[in-house]
Amino acid sequence: MNDDATATRYATASGPEAAYRRLTARFGRLAVLGEAQSMLHWDASAMMPPGGAAARGEQLATLAGLGHAMLTAPEVADDLAAVGAAVGAGAAVAGEWEGANLALIRRAHARAVALPTTLVEAVERANSACETVWRRAKAESDFALVRPYLAEVVRLQRETATALGEALGLDPYDALMDGYQPGIGAADVAPVFAAYEAFLAEALPEAEAIQARRRAPVQPVPPFPAEAQRVLCRLVTERMGLDYDHARLDESLHPFCGGTPTDVRITTNYDESDYAKALLGVIHETGHALYERGLPEAWARQPVGEAAGMAAHESQSLIMEMQAALSDAFLGWLGPVLHGRFGGEAAAYAPANLAALWRQVGRGFIRIEADELTYPAHVILRFRLERALIGGSLEVADLPGAWNEGFRAAFGIVPPDDARGCLQDIHWHDGAFGYFPSYTLGAMAAAQLMAAARRDLPEMDAALGRGEMLPLVGWLRERVHAQGSRLGFQDLLRHATGKPLDPADFLAHIRRRYLTA
Amino acid sequence: MNDDATATRYATASGPEAAYRRLTARFGRLAVLGEAQSMLHWDASAMMPPGGAAARGEQLATLAGLGHAMLTAPEVADDLAAVGAAVGAGAAVAGEWEGANLALIRRAHARAVALPTTLVEAVERANSACETVWRRAKAESDFALVRPYLAEVVRLQRETATALGEALGLDPYDALMDGYQPGIGAADVAPVFAAYEAFLAEALPEAEAIQARRRAPVQPVPPFPAEAQRVLCRLVTERMGLDYDHARLDESLHPFCGGTPTDVRITTNYDESDYAKALLGVIHETGHALYERGLPEAWARQPVGEAAGMAAHESQSLIMEMQAALSDAFLGWLGPVLHGRFGGEAAAYAPANLAALWRQVGRGFIRIEADELTYPAHVILRFRLERALIGGSLEVADLPGAWNEGFRAAFGIVPPDDARGCLQDIHWHDGAFGYFPSYTLGAMAAAQLMAAARRDLPEMDAALGRGEMLPLVGWLRERVHAQGSRLGFQDLLRHATGKPLDPADFLAHIRRRYLTA
Repeated sequence: MNDDATATRYATASGPEAAYRRLTARFGRLAVLGEAQSMLHWDASAMMPPGGAAARGEQLATLAGLGHAMLTAPEVADDLAAVGAAVGAGAAVAGEWEGANLALIRRAHARAVALPTTLVEAVERANSACETVWRRAKAESDFALVRPYLAEVVRLQRETATALGEALGLDPYDALMDGYQPGIGAADVAPVFAAYEAFLAEALPEAEAIQARRRAPVQPVPPFPAEAQRVLCRLVTERMGLDYDHARLDESLHPFCGGTPTDVRITTNYDESDYAKALLGVIHETGHALYERGLPEAWARQPVGEAAGMAAHESQSLIMEMQAALSDAFLGWLGPVLHGRFGGEAAAYAPANLAALWRQVGRGFIRIEADELTYPAHVILRFRLERALIGGSLEVADLPGAWNEGFRAAFGIVPPDDARGCLQDIHWHDGAFGYFPSYTLGAMAAAQLMAAARRDLPEMDAALGRGEMLPLVGWLRERVHAQGSRLGFQDLLRHATGKPLDPADFLAHIRRRYLTA
Repeated sequence: MNDDATATRYATASGPEAAYRRLTARFGRLAVLGEAQSMLHWDASAMMPPGGAAARGEQLATLAGLGHAMLTAPEVADDLAAVGAAVGAGAAVAGEWEGANLALIRRAHARAVALPTTLVEAVERANSACETVWRRAKAESDFALVRPYLAEVVRLQRETATALGEALGLDPYDALMDGYQPGIGAADVAPVFAAYEAFLAEALPEAEAIQARRRAPVQPVPPFPAEAQRVLCRLVTERMGLDYDHARLDESLHPFCGGTPTDVRITTNYDESDYAKALLGVIHETGHALYERGLPEAWARQPVGEAAGMAAHESQSLIMEMQAALSDAFLGWLGPVLHGRFGGEAAAYAPANLAALWRQVGRGFIRIEADELTYPAHVILRFRLERALIGGSLEVADLPGAWNEGFRAAFGIVPPDDARGCLQDIHWHDGAFGYFPSYTLGAMAAAQLMAAARRDLPEMDAALGRGEMLPLVGWLRERVHAQGSRLGFQDLLRHATGKPLDPADFLAHIRRRYLTA
C-alpha cells in the first residue's frame, strides 16, 4: 500500500470509506514513525557511544511528540465519527480484519486522547527522573533515596490509570494492564494466580526434595570464548528459522529484541564463564523475533498487523526457550553440539546433565534468575503490590515492608536488603505498572500452545530430537504469528489451541518436569 | 535550551521576539529530526541487513516528509514576516549570531517553499529510480540503460534549479551550488578553475617527468590483517583528538562520516592487500568528524550552529588527510609506527618511501583514485558538464561524447568505456548537481588554512613530527569549527586566514610537493 497515494486520494473525500482510508494512512505513518523509534532505541542499547545519550533522548522525545500529535489530531476524531457504525457486511469497513483494525484504531485513539498532554509530559519526566535515581538506589540498596521519586511516579500512574479507566470503562489498574495486553484485566489473572499459589505451596517443597535426592550435575569448565558462543547462537537461531537477511544479533547490557518486522534486532551478552546465559537468552529473544517476522505482511503497519500484546509476545519467547529448547528431545540434539563446540568433559554436556543444570529449582530473591516453577510467585507478589499501589491501598513508603512480608509468605525467606527486594526491577521505577502479569500469562500460554502443537504435530518431538525447530515454528506462524492482532489474547488461544487460557497445561508441564522423581 | 518550554512560552505571544523564538524552537525540532535521519542513514550503510532496506526507505521518506511539512508550515512565513527587519542593535533579534541564524532560517525556508511538493516528490522518485538503474548500467558499462532515467533526473533538476533561482535571485545552476555551499556560485569558481587548468597543462608533464626520474618506491608486502588496521586507525584518530565517548568507527561499503555532533559515526572498509586505503580514508573522515564535534555547542541544533557548507567540510577532511597526514613531518612519525604494526621490510615504511608511495601522480580515469595534482581536473570537467546540463546547452544523450572529449582535452587520453567515464560517479544519477566544485574548493581552502596555521603555529610541524595533530586541530577548532555557519565560506576563510579563497596557497603546496625535483 502506498500510504501517501492513499492519503492524497482520500484527502478530501467524505463518507465512511474515505474516512477509514484516511485513518489507515495515518496509522501507517504512525507505524513507520514507531519503526524509526525502535531502531533508535536499539542503537542506543547496542551501538551508541555514551556521549550520544542526551541527543538520543531528544530524538526519541521529538519522534514520540510527533506521533502523539498525529494520533490526537482533531481529524482522527472526525474520521472515527464519520466511519461510525459503518462496519459489517456490505458496509464501507467490511471484513473481520478491517473491523478488528478499526476497533484497534479506536482503542489507540481513545487511550491517547484520554490523557492530557501535560500529564503525558509529567509522566515522562517523572519516570525518567525516577529511573535515574533508581540506578543509584539499587546499587546502594537505599530505598529512601528513590522513595520520593517513586511516590511521584505512582501518583502520576494513579492519575493516568483513572483517566484511562474512565475513558475505557475499566477499573484503573485494568486500564494499565490493558495497555500491555489488551482485553486482559485483574479479574482474568487473580484466580489463576491464586490457584498457582496454592499449587506451589505443595509443589515447591516437593520439587526441592526430588532435586535433593538427585546427584549434583556436572559443571562444564569455563572459559567459553565469546566468539564460539556467537557462532553457536547464530547456528541455533538459524535452525529456529531466523533469517539473517532480516535480522541481526548483537551485544547489549540487557538482552532484548527490537527493530521492525523486516529487520529484527536481537541482542545478548556473552559471559565467558557461563555459555548458557547467552544461549538460552538468544533462544528466548529469537522467539520474540520470529513472532515479529511472522506477522501478517498484508496488514503491515496497521494495528491489526501488530503482535497481539505482551503476554502473547512472551508466550512466543517462552515456548522456544522453556518448552522447546529445554525439552528432553532438543537437549538430546544440543548436548553433543555443545560438546563439539566447547570440548572438555563430555559428561557436562550429556543431555540429562544439561536438563539437571538448566532445570534447577530454588528459593532465590531475584525474579530474572528464578526457575520456571517459582517464577510465577515472583510475578504474583508484584501483581498484588502494584495493584494495591495503583488502587491506593498501599503507599510507596510501605512498599519495602509489604514486599518482604509478601516474599516471606511465598518463599519462607526475607530479602536481606532492598536491592534484592523491591529495588530489583526497573519496571515500577520507569512507570511500568500492569506489565508483570504478562510474564506468567505468557508462560502459561506457552505451555498451552506447546500441548496443542504436540497434539497437532505427532512428529514434533522427533524433529526436536534432530535439532529441528521448524515444525513447531511453522505451526506457531500459522496459528499465532499470522493472526496479528485480529484476535484478543483469549480468542487467539482459542483459535490456536481450542480453548481460552487454561493453566492446566502449564501445571501438567511443571508436574512432568519438576515433580516426577 | 529547552525547545518545548520555549515553544510553549512563546506559543501565542506576538511581536518580533516571540516570533523569532518560535522559529528557533521549530528549527531546533527540525534539527533533531535531521539527527534521527542521519542515524538511520548510518545504520542503513553500516548495520542494516539487506531485508530492512524497503522499510528503511519508508522511514526516511516519512521523516523527510514530516520535516518538510514543519519547514513549510504557514506559521513559518507568518513568523518570518513578524520578525521582519527587527534585527540589529536594540532590536528583538540582536547580535551577530542571532542575525546570521535568522538569515539562515530565512534561506532554508525560502529554498523549501520555492519547490512545490509535487516537484520534490517527483525528484525523489526519479533520483531513486535512476540510482537503482545506474548501478547496473555502471556494472555493465551501458549508458543507454540509464539514459532515459538520467534524462528525467536532469529535466527535474532543471525545473528545480529554475524555481530555486527565481526564489533566491540566482542563476539556476548557482541555485543548486548554493544548496551545497551557500553563497558560492559558478562565477566564484570558473576563473579559479580556468587558472588551474592552465597551470596543470604544464605542471602535470613536469611532475610526471620528475617522478619518472626517481627510483620506484618499495611496495609493502600484504596481507595487512583487518584487525591490525582497525587498531591502527583507532590509534591515529585518537591522536587526532577523536573522542570515542562521542564517536564510533565501523565498516561500510562506501566510507563516510555521519551521525550527529555529539555522536559521530565514521566508517571505512579494510582491504587486507592495501592498508593505506583505510588509514588515509579514516584520517579523511575524521577531519569531517572533528568539524562536527567542534561546532559551537551554544548554537547546537540551530542553522548557525551547523557546518558552513560542503566545501568548508571538505576543507576539514582534506587538511587532515592531504596536508597534515601526508606531510613529511607526520610521515616521519607514522613510518616507524606502521612498521611496528605490520612488520616486514622496513624500507617499505621509511618516511620517504611512504611519501613516494602516497604522492604518485598520473593520468587515471577515476576521480576517487586521482592524486592531489590531477583531482581538480576531474572536478573541473564535471563542473563544466553539469553546468551545461542544467543550463540546457548539453543534453543527456550527448553526455558520453562530451565527457570523453573533455577528458581528452584535460589528460590527453580517452576512457575506454563509460564505466570509466561518465558512469563512474553516483552524484548525477542520484540528482546531485552543483556538488562537485566543493571538492576542489575544499582542497584549495585546506592548503590556505594549512599555510595560515603554519604561520600562526611555528611549532606545528615539529609536533606533527611527533605524531601530534592536536595543535593543528586546536587551531581549526577555534578558527573554523567553533564558527559554525556564522560566516559564509569566503568570510570564514578571511576570518581564519586573513583573506578570501586564494588558490595561491594550493598552487604553492602543489609546487613544493610535486614540482620540486
